[in-house]
Amino acid sequence: MSTGNIYESITEVAKRRGFFWPSFEIYGNIAGFTTYGDVGVKLKRNIEALWRENFVRRQGFFEIEDPIVNSGKVFEASGHLANFKEHATTCSQCGRGFRADHLIEEKTQMEHVEAQGGDAIKRLLVENNIKCPVCGGTLKEPTLVLTMFQTQIGATGAEVGYMRPEAAQGMCTNFKRCYQANRERVPFAISQQGKVMRNEVSPRRGMHRLREFTIMELELFFDPQNPACHWLKDVESETVRLITEDMEEKGVKEPVEVTVREAVDKKLILTEWQGYFMGVGKRFMQSLGVPPERQQFRAHLPQERSHYSSQTFDHEVQTRSWGWIEVAGHANRTDYDLNAHQKGSGVDMSVLRKDGTRFIPHVIEPSYGLDRLTFVAMETAWEQRDTGKEKRNILHFPRSLAPYQVSVQPLVTKDGLPEKAMTVYDIVLNGGYRAIFDDGGSIGRRYARQDEVGTPLAVTIDYTTMEKGILTLRDRDSWEQVNVHVDELPEKLHAYFRGDEFRSLGPLLQRSGE
Amino acid sequence: MSTGNIYESITEVAKRRGFFWPSFEIYGNIAGFTTYGDVGVKLKRNIEALWRENFVRRQGFFEIEDPIVNSGKVFEASGHLANFKEHATTCSQCGRGFRADHLIEEKTQMEHVEAQGGDAIKRLLVENNIKCPVCGGTLKEPTLVLTMFQTQIGATGAEVGYMRPEAAQGMCTNFKRCYQANRERVPFAISQQGKVMRNEVSPRRGMHRLREFTIMELELFFDPQNPACHWLKDVESETVRLITEDMEEKGVKEPVEVTVREAVDKKLILTEWQGYFMGVGKRFMQSLGVPPERQQFRAHLPQERSHYSSQTFDHEVQTRSWGWIEVAGHANRTDYDLNAHQKGSGVDMSVLRKDGTRFIPHVIEPSYGLDRLTFVAMETAWEQRDTGKEKRNILHFPRSLAPYQVSVQPLVTKDGLPEKAMTVYDIVLNGGYRAIFDDGGSIGRRYARQDEVGTPLAVTIDYTTMEKGILTLRDRDSWEQVNVHVDELPEKLHAYFRGDEFRSLGPLLQRSGE
Repeated sequence: MSTGNIYESITEVAKRRGFFWPSFEIYGNIAGFTTYGDVGVKLKRNIEALWRENFVRRQGFFEIEDPIVNSGKVFEASGHLANFKEHATTCSQCGRGFRADHLIEEKTQMEHVEAQGGDAIKRLLVENNIKCPVCGGTLKEPTLVLTMFQTQIGATGAEVGYMRPEAAQGMCTNFKRCYQANRERVPFAISQQGKVMRNEVSPRRGMHRLREFTIMELELFFDPQNPACHWLKDVESETVRLITEDMEEKGVKEPVEVTVREAVDKKLILTEWQGYFMGVGKRFMQSLGVPPERQQFRAHLPQERSHYSSQTFDHEVQTRSWGWIEVAGHANRTDYDLNAHQKGSGVDMSVLRKDGTRFIPHVIEPSYGLDRLTFVAMETAWEQRDTGKEKRNILHFPRSLAPYQVSVQPLVTKDGLPEKAMTVYDIVLNGGYRAIFDDGGSIGRRYARQDEVGTPLAVTIDYTTMEKGILTLRDRDSWEQVNVHVDELPEKLHAYFRGDEFRSLGPLLQRSGE
Repeated sequence: MSTGNIYESITEVAKRRGFFWPSFEIYGNIAGFTTYGDVGVKLKRNIEALWRENFVRRQGFFEIEDPIVNSGKVFEASGHLANFKEHATTCSQCGRGFRADHLIEEKTQMEHVEAQGGDAIKRLLVENNIKCPVCGGTLKEPTLVLTMFQTQIGATGAEVGYMRPEAAQGMCTNFKRCYQANRERVPFAISQQGKVMRNEVSPRRGMHRLREFTIMELELFFDPQNPACHWLKDVESETVRLITEDMEEKGVKEPVEVTVREAVDKKLILTEWQGYFMGVGKRFMQSLGVPPERQQFRAHLPQERSHYSSQTFDHEVQTRSWGWIEVAGHANRTDYDLNAHQKGSGVDMSVLRKDGTRFIPHVIEPSYGLDRLTFVAMETAWEQRDTGKEKRNILHFPRSLAPYQVSVQPLVTKDGLPEKAMTVYDIVLNGGYRAIFDDGGSIGRRYARQDEVGTPLAVTIDYTTMEKGILTLRDRDSWEQVNVHVDELPEKLHAYFRGDEFRSLGPLLQRSGE
């Protein structure tokens, strides 16, 4: 199947079944905004819960929630007002705006053009004779434009505010309060999940580059004189596929495969904490269904790195729609941000060592983009199965990641079957599962519908249920069916979502005609 | 305890222990923004989960997530650009802005002054000789100012955007997609939880009036010719305390107590769906710890209602800090919004009846403010207990609502106790609980600390644990302690969080000296 096809197929299902679609569509859309429908919200929330389980709950790390609208002072101090900019060009004919580096990349197949700087971008635009991709008009000389959303705080007032483009500043400006709540000890981490906004010049490719998106970010604060990570042993034998700075410089495309321990020992990854989180990140991505061979960590070149970073690895995933895409950044932010806020606010951000000396903690940051992960989870789960009679779309989400876990359906809508099915539905709901009651159309159409939103288990109520209390359970992946008595349903559900084989739940029925 | 005291006590604990504090405090704060710390985020998320359980999961209602930044066209059509305004006055001396109606209310003890309209507000400001509350300067004549945050979408572009001041427009502009995903049937509901922003002129009272806050909103779409709610029977015998429009008009302060069924039959509540959600809302509030006698539903007078509403009840809770406050609005939005977007976009919003006629669905909306609920949950749980030796703060959250459910603590940090405690901590984590490891200071100080953040259960590892595997469990509310063997811990935790009495878990110890 071609790349174009799978992206279009997923997007079509996403709209029709309610995963996601372009926002404000009744008013003609604005690029860079996505609306999640019912199954999309649930999938997204389940991924968020998995992230929290992997990165926060197990370690006992802190969480915070800081506002999206921020005082301008925060971003003045952090350097974002000076640095959070893109090289934009506008068409002198139609007036549309574009990122100059993206236009160059599209025309020349060059990579990471932004890292070459403004002079090179101006030159490359002219040298390659690049015109407006919409109307063919002449493009103006690129200028650096701020890509944060700006607003005024106070309906009568004039305090300039900005929407945060990342969550990290919240962890840094609130560092001291959290440090006190942690009884003044490092290392410790503060995590935050929430909306961020980037006023992109010309966002493209749907979910891949949004102006408003959800970030899951964590700042680990540590003493650079005592950089050991006591959890490293939990992931040290995980292999990670790295494209180091050296390799990137030489244009090497094939990653080297090393264990986290080797990567840290050989100084390919500069700190134990960064190695730890990259190992955790690899496992997290596997739990979404992405196998190790479709993951890699690519180092940023010095000129490509953000203004605050001393080492950054992008966590990349190989997609069928877009090739390798970044789903996370693992950055060594050093003491840049705390220093910046100490200077900006005059508040002392240093902390005390046991020996009486003071230091400003250094920061390791793993930062995952939840919207891209939602798309990646869908694409990874995607199968189009040809039954001979028709093409069926199936989303093979891991069982607990699926938007709905169980569908409950009466075979027909008469003879008391719907009422009986409602009592079964209540049993499922009482177990705490995400469940959907589906009584529309033929049973085959209903199975197809649930396959298309990835519901792993269907429970069907038929005349045997009325007579003997026997239910039919049907598995999304294998399309196999087993019989289970209604009294056993709670324990069977428990076993299935614990990971037991579907066939172990009860006697196998003749395979349905699907 | 006086009103001032409890508010100040809670605010002090909130800052020190990490529930919440004013945002950007290192840069001097901006009124109307709150930052949640670790235990605050967890409490807030648990309340959100309870809301979802009560209002969404059980009914199988839809969820969506629409952007915060919206196209200006949305709010032009919805009437917000014309109506989402406040009467603001600025001081001619110091330039500060204020809500004119609030200044009048503070000076005169009048209520709901806004509902009297602009001319009355201008007159009352002059008649009562109201000056600037900060500098005493002369106030300018009030003007209507828009209280939505405005921005520009696109770094080079000039499309005006607004931050949404409510979530409801997302459900209405995306109605048709959700209706299709629901296989074209009404009634059905779409819910949304997320951030909204209101650019208040002069926010006061901390969490009570924020410029950026989280809303949990639901729009139930139904056919006005077929307004029956098939779930009404689930809550029909719940009593609700109402101040009806009539009573409000006459200045009656004491609510009438009726069942939901009576309120609907007597047309005190105009639709079954609104009655249903008010009953659900009462139960939801009880699950946060707020007893029925501290809840009431107060009707808006016609001139007080929003531009879209035909009947609105505020769900009010009696707080010790602020008296009666609104935590939710239950509004009958009629077909106002869908009609408005049909006109604004040209997209047909009508749906088909079985008899072939078409209609635009009507909407019932329960809308809860999550930040106020977080404060209400804390205040409701709050106790200051005098032990004779000291005053102890205890937050008696319902067991599953507490930020952390279990604390694990070694009696001393030597002789292998911390290592043993870590294995117990792992047992608790493997059970899926929110758990905290606490090894700082005397065991008494640690119990006090956990009481102050509301952790219901403490598990202590001492020398008996090393010898015989016996743990000490301690209950936050009663300060009682029981012994439990480490092998029994998973089942004892399960029993406790299911709601079993603490004393039933094991043999009671001598009461500690707290």
